[in-house]
Amino acid sequence: MPSSPASDPPVGVADIEAAARRIAPVALRTPLLENPLLNERLGYRLLVKAECLQRTGSFKIRGAYNRLSQLSDDERRRGVVAFSSGNHAQGVAYAARVVGTPAVIVMPADAPALKIANTRAYGAEVVLYDRQAESREEIGARLSAERGLVLVPPFDDPRIIAGQATVGLEIAAQCRELDVVPDAVLVGCSGGGLAAGTAIVLADRLPGTKLHTVEPEGFDDTRRSLAAGRRVGAPAGARSFCDALLSPLPGEITFPVIRRLAAYGLAVTDAAVEVAMATAFAYLKIVVEPGGAAALAAAMRTEAVPYRAVVAVASGGNVDPALFAGTISQTHPI
Amino acid sequence: MPSSPASDPPVGVADIEAAARRIAPVALRTPLLENPLLNERLGYRLLVKAECLQRTGSFKIRGAYNRLSQLSDDERRRGVVAFSSGNHAQGVAYAARVVGTPAVIVMPADAPALKIANTRAYGAEVVLYDRQAESREEIGARLSAERGLVLVPPFDDPRIIAGQATVGLEIAAQCRELDVVPDAVLVGCSGGGLAAGTAIVLADRLPGTKLHTVEPEGFDDTRRSLAAGRRVGAPAGARSFCDALLSPLPGEITFPVIRRLAAYGLAVTDAAVEVAMATAFAYLKIVVEPGGAAALAAAMRTEAVPYRAVVAVASGGNVDPALFAGTISQTHPI
Repeated sequence: MPSSPASDPPVGVADIEAAARRIAPVALRTPLLENPLLNERLGYRLLVKAECLQRTGSFKIRGAYNRLSQLSDDERRRGVVAFSSGNHAQGVAYAARVVGTPAVIVMPADAPALKIANTRAYGAEVVLYDRQAESREEIGARLSAERGLVLVPPFDDPRIIAGQATVGLEIAAQCRELDVVPDAVLVGCSGGGLAAGTAIVLADRLPGTKLHTVEPEGFDDTRRSLAAGRRVGAPAGARSFCDALLSPLPGEITFPVIRRLAAYGLAVTDAAVEVAMATAFAYLKIVVEPGGAAALAAAMRTEAVPYRAVVAVASGGNVDPALFAGTISQTHPI
Repeated sequence: MPSSPASDPPVGVADIEAAARRIAPVALRTPLLENPLLNERLGYRLLVKAECLQRTGSFKIRGAYNRLSQLSDDERRRGVVAFSSGNHAQGVAYAARVVGTPAVIVMPADAPALKIANTRAYGAEVVLYDRQAESREEIGARLSAERGLVLVPPFDDPRIIAGQATVGLEIAAQCRELDVVPDAVLVGCSGGGLAAGTAIVLADRLPGTKLHTVEPEGFDDTRRSLAAGRRVGAPAGARSFCDALLSPLPGEITFPVIRRLAAYGLAVTDAAVEVAMATAFAYLKIVVEPGGAAALAAAMRTEAVPYRAVVAVASGGNVDPALFAGTISQTHPI
C-alpha cells in the first residue's frame, strides 16, 4: 500500500515488521494487563501494555537492539555512544553487550541511581554530565568524533523509531486477540520515538483508534507543538519527577509523523502520576516509574473522554525503591 | 498413554488441557520473566512465571473458574461457598461473578485488608473467622449445609487441581519457546493444588525437570510429609508473614500426587522471602506478595544446587502497600 499514510517515510509498517523479527530473540512480548475491579471503577476498559516488564525495564531495548543489530562489522569493532536519562542508556548498554560492541553512555548526574548502576552493570562506560550546565548532544558528538563511535540517538533515527514501533504492533495484535477496538492509545512522549512509531502502526492496523501523546505539565512541548503546528519548546523552569520525559523539544524526524497521525497531546501533573503508580501497584501488580506512568495517569482521567476501551503504555519500571515505597504508601489508588 | 504417571488419577493431562481451553477467556497467559543482570548475579538462568499478574492477582482464578464454569444450572442458582486466606477467595468471588452465581467466602479476620476488600468488591459475601479459635472447614461445611451452597475447596478437588495445573502447561510451552529445559520448577505449597497439578504436567512434558515444593519455615508440613512418606503436620506455634502458605497439612488428594512426582520439599525463612520480594521489585518490576515469593526465595539459594536454569512460580501479588513499601525500602535485593 504505497500511498497509505502508514507506509510513508521515514518508517513503514514493513520496516516495523522487520524490526519485530530482528528483536524477537532479545525482547519480550509484554502482556496487555487489565483488572476487572479497576475497569469497573473507571467505567471503561483500561488495557495496560506493561513495557515495564520488558528486558532492561523499559521499551527502549526494542529500538536500541534494532539499531545495534544492524551495525556493520567495522562499526561494531569501534563501538557506540548514546545520551540518555536512563532507559535508552540501559537499552543501548544491554544491546551492545548482546551484539558484542563497546558502549559509552552519557547520562545526567541526577539520573536515578538505579538507572546509572544498571547501565554500568551491563558493561557500559558511563559519562555523567550536569543537566543544567552542559549539553548531552555536544558531549555525545564529541565522544563520537574523538573515538569513532557510532552515535545511537534516543529517538531521531528511523531504526530506533521502527524498533519502538513494535510496541504498537503488539498492541494491535493483542487487541485483535481480545476482540477489542480501543478508542485511544496513550503513550508517554519525550523525544517521540515511541509515539511516532506507534502512530504509524495504528494508522495501518487500528485506523479508528486515536493516538495521544502524554507529557508532564511544564514539559509539554509536544502538546504545544501539536497545537502550534510546529516544533516549540515548553517554558523553562518547570520541575517534574518524571525523569524519563524531560526532553525539551520534539524530534526533527518524530514530530512530523506525530503531527500527521496523532490526535492531540495531553499533559498530567506529578500528583496524577503518583496516583497512577499507586493504582498500577494495587490493581495490576506492576512497578511503574514516574515517566512510565504518565500515560496511565492520562488514561485514568475519566471526566475527560467517554471511553469504552483505552490502551495506555506503561513504558518503564526503573524507579528507585525509596521513591516507589514513598509513593505507594502515601498515595491512594484511584 | 493410560499407563504414564501423568495420566494416572486424580487428574490427567487431557483434563488439564480441557481446563486450559475452559479458562482461556478469563485467565491471562502470564509471561515468563527474566533479567540478564539477575541471571548473571545468580550464575544461572532464573525464569519467573509471573502469576502475580494474573486476573485477581494470583493463579487461583484458574482453578476457581475451571470449577465454577462446570456448575450445573441448579448449582449456579444456589451459589457457592469457599474458605480461603485470600487468593482463592478472590478467585472464587470473581469466577462467581463471571458465571453469575452468588458466593460466600469464609476468610480469617487477620487476612490482608486488600484481600478482604477485593473479595467484597467482586461481589462476594465475606464471613470472617478467628484463625486461632475456629475451624474454617466447619464454618464452610455448615454454610454449605444450611444454604445449599456448593463447597469449592481450595485444593482437594480434581477440577481445582486441573485448573491450577494450567500454570504448568504454560511453563512447559514457554520453556519450549525459549528452547530451555529447566533443571527444576519451584512452586509455593500450601494445600498443594498448584504443586500437584504442575507435577502432573511436568512428568508428561518435561520429564527430566524436577519439581520442588517450597514452604515457609515452621509451616513445612509438605516437606516433612515427603520425608516421612505420609501426611504429617508441622509443629504448632510458628509464625510467618507468608499468609498464603499457612495450611497445616498437605491435601488428601494432592499429597499422594506430590509424593509420587515431586523431588523433595524446601523451606525458606521470612527474611529470605523479603530478599526475594525486593529482588523481584528491583529486577523484574513485579509486585509479589510474601507467599508468592517463597519459590523465588528458594530459587535464589545459589549455594544449594548447581542449576543451569530454574523456573520459580511467583504465585500472587496481593500485598498491602505498607508491607510492600517497608520490605522494598528496608531490604537489599540479592
